[in-house]
Amino acid sequence: MLSRRTAWDLAGNRLSSRLEALRAAGRPLLDLSEANPTRCGLGWSAAELGAALADPRVSDYEPTPQGLPAAREAVAAYLAGHGAAVPPERILLTSSTSEAYALLFKLLCDPGDEVLVPSPSYPLLDLLAGLESVALRRYPLRYDGEWHLDRAALAAAVGPRTRAVVAVSPSNPTGWLLDAGDLAFLEALAGERGLALLGDEVFADTALAPRASAAGARGCLAFHLSGLSKVCGLPQLKAGWIAAAGPEPLVAPALARLEVVADTWLSVSGPAQLALPALLGRRERFLGPLRERLGQNRRALASEAEGAPFDLLRSGGGWSAVLRLGEAVDEEALCLALLEDGVVAQPGFFYDFERNGHLVISLLPEPGRFKDGISRIGARLRYKRAQ
Amino acid sequence: MLSRRTAWDLAGNRLSSRLEALRAAGRPLLDLSEANPTRCGLGWSAAELGAALADPRVSDYEPTPQGLPAAREAVAAYLAGHGAAVPPERILLTSSTSEAYALLFKLLCDPGDEVLVPSPSYPLLDLLAGLESVALRRYPLRYDGEWHLDRAALAAAVGPRTRAVVAVSPSNPTGWLLDAGDLAFLEALAGERGLALLGDEVFADTALAPRASAAGARGCLAFHLSGLSKVCGLPQLKAGWIAAAGPEPLVAPALARLEVVADTWLSVSGPAQLALPALLGRRERFLGPLRERLGQNRRALASEAEGAPFDLLRSGGGWSAVLRLGEAVDEEALCLALLEDGVVAQPGFFYDFERNGHLVISLLPEPGRFKDGISRIGARLRYKRAQ
Repeated sequence: MLSRRTAWDLAGNRLSSRLEALRAAGRPLLDLSEANPTRCGLGWSAAELGAALADPRVSDYEPTPQGLPAAREAVAAYLAGHGAAVPPERILLTSSTSEAYALLFKLLCDPGDEVLVPSPSYPLLDLLAGLESVALRRYPLRYDGEWHLDRAALAAAVGPRTRAVVAVSPSNPTGWLLDAGDLAFLEALAGERGLALLGDEVFADTALAPRASAAGARGCLAFHLSGLSKVCGLPQLKAGWIAAAGPEPLVAPALARLEVVADTWLSVSGPAQLALPALLGRRERFLGPLRERLGQNRRALASEAEGAPFDLLRSGGGWSAVLRLGEAVDEEALCLALLEDGVVAQPGFFYDFERNGHLVISLLPEPGRFKDGISRIGARLRYKRAQ
Repeated sequence: MLSRRTAWDLAGNRLSSRLEALRAAGRPLLDLSEANPTRCGLGWSAAELGAALADPRVSDYEPTPQGLPAAREAVAAYLAGHGAAVPPERILLTSSTSEAYALLFKLLCDPGDEVLVPSPSYPLLDLLAGLESVALRRYPLRYDGEWHLDRAALAAAVGPRTRAVVAVSPSNPTGWLLDAGDLAFLEALAGERGLALLGDEVFADTALAPRASAAGARGCLAFHLSGLSKVCGLPQLKAGWIAAAGPEPLVAPALARLEVVADTWLSVSGPAQLALPALLGRRERFLGPLRERLGQNRRALASEAEGAPFDLLRSGGGWSAVLRLGEAVDEEALCLALLEDGVVAQPGFFYDFERNGHLVISLLPEPGRFKDGISRIGARLRYKRAQ
């Protein structure tokens, strides 16, 4: 009596079962999969947050489908800082980037329609699309000393029911960056084939090189997605946004419908909307220490990689690092062995890498713990090779 | 390039266009459609709310698909006060009752499946279902001195693709109450036909007579839906809940899947989850003055109805009143005329009444304004009749 769209296999895999057992047993673990900044000493103080949340206007409810004007103006200012001129009228608040995907999938797709997503990418996209009865098709990101878009493969993946292309930049977990050339290619393709471009740019503030934004698209209907979760390290506030870009004749009807979709739930809490301008304005309070953390952990990893039996793949940003181990490595067996070594790391198959033999680790953990964790990974890999 | 599921006719109707024009012109209006308690002097003070929101734990993010245990325990205690023993493990927080519907529609229905909803009922249900590609079928509530369920008509409306029955109690706008006999009937029908029962009970605390709760169902898979919006008059917090009821072999797999659905968005903000126990515990802070307001406005309406050319339909609770004007009345023309009299009221067709000739008004407005508004309605109707 339950739906087919939720007919998942909920039995845990060997890795998740073992991890759960170790946690239940109270085994200390160096969690190199931790992506929650508030657990890595990168959050805000309760006093700072409390002050922002206890706004005197919090007792009034102002139901606005697009979100409070002051919050949308703050997002516009943020985007201007990234070189994209988006008026507040083209911005719509969401409770998260996940909700932004859900609203856009509903806007663009009917059941059975398709959306193109990068491979590798974050597995949540499968759930988000499946729950809207939308099918995903993959297009490859490929590595040859750096990650790049395989434009021909992407163009070939467009089918008659394709409605949108998702570009995650910096991408999770690879750190691939959308550059001006790729954006021009995607705009032309999307414009020609009647697709929308969805730019998931939650990691934009950690980019290590110049990048282009979907919010600056001119040649097609495009949407930039982001939020306080990654920009301010505040996943608990549930405040994100969509910024629409492209030709007005395409944007206007899309926004008119999107407003009705948003009006159906009005999901963003009043306190979060009221707090958004102050928190977003002070984002360097989080981003400064974050960038320092990411840099420090990346340097430790580069140093560990020297002479180790793995390659650290070059990344353009984001909160993760990808280690290439060689195709012969059994990712699951390695991650199980690492668990016994007290280290949690994610296998590449979790992110749907085209080829076998990758580990994904979070760059957020506190540097001492991070260094300890990666040296255990290095030791485990050297031990395996020596066998 | 946009979806069929969002292909609405977005042109305003004559009523909404005229209302917008009058508002834009700054015309003072007695809004008897106002359902936002924070605009009717029924809210909390900013200091009370701010204190609840500035919880010292607000800087930590604890992602839990079901919601924080303390918040679920508070909901269990609330339900116990309504006579339903639901353990916290069967409770799941949502960002609103609207989101609760969306999650349950996804859990129970694939595109093209059907859900039965009462007629009359709140039009948001059409949007909520349509956006999940779920079809609605109506079953009638009928009035013969009081509202009652037409059980035979409901049973006849169940088709091969029906997956759930929605019962809103007290219902919006009629104030129909689900009683023990109707609940037993619905449990038997749902159990037999493999349906789930969805009990939207957001107005439960305003019931004027004993009622049964879907949270107390034993014979079928059932879900109670409610939230702080209506129970505490805090729509801006975006905190609601689902409580599952029924036989464990049906509830367990449903909850397991529902957790994954909720985990995909994790929509409820941390501050709202942390504040929920204190606010829900102090709900009489809102409900006391609310019940007084509803009673006072109902009495004023009953007095206005004496000798007036309309009937005040008997209601079992909720925030609205239904006036029956007679089938010959043109609802739209009347509401347009009322706008010129400075009164906003909703026509019955907005709620899909089976028969023509109803007005729906909110019982929330401040009593002086309410009385002024209904006496203008009375005057307009007497004038019309005299013509």
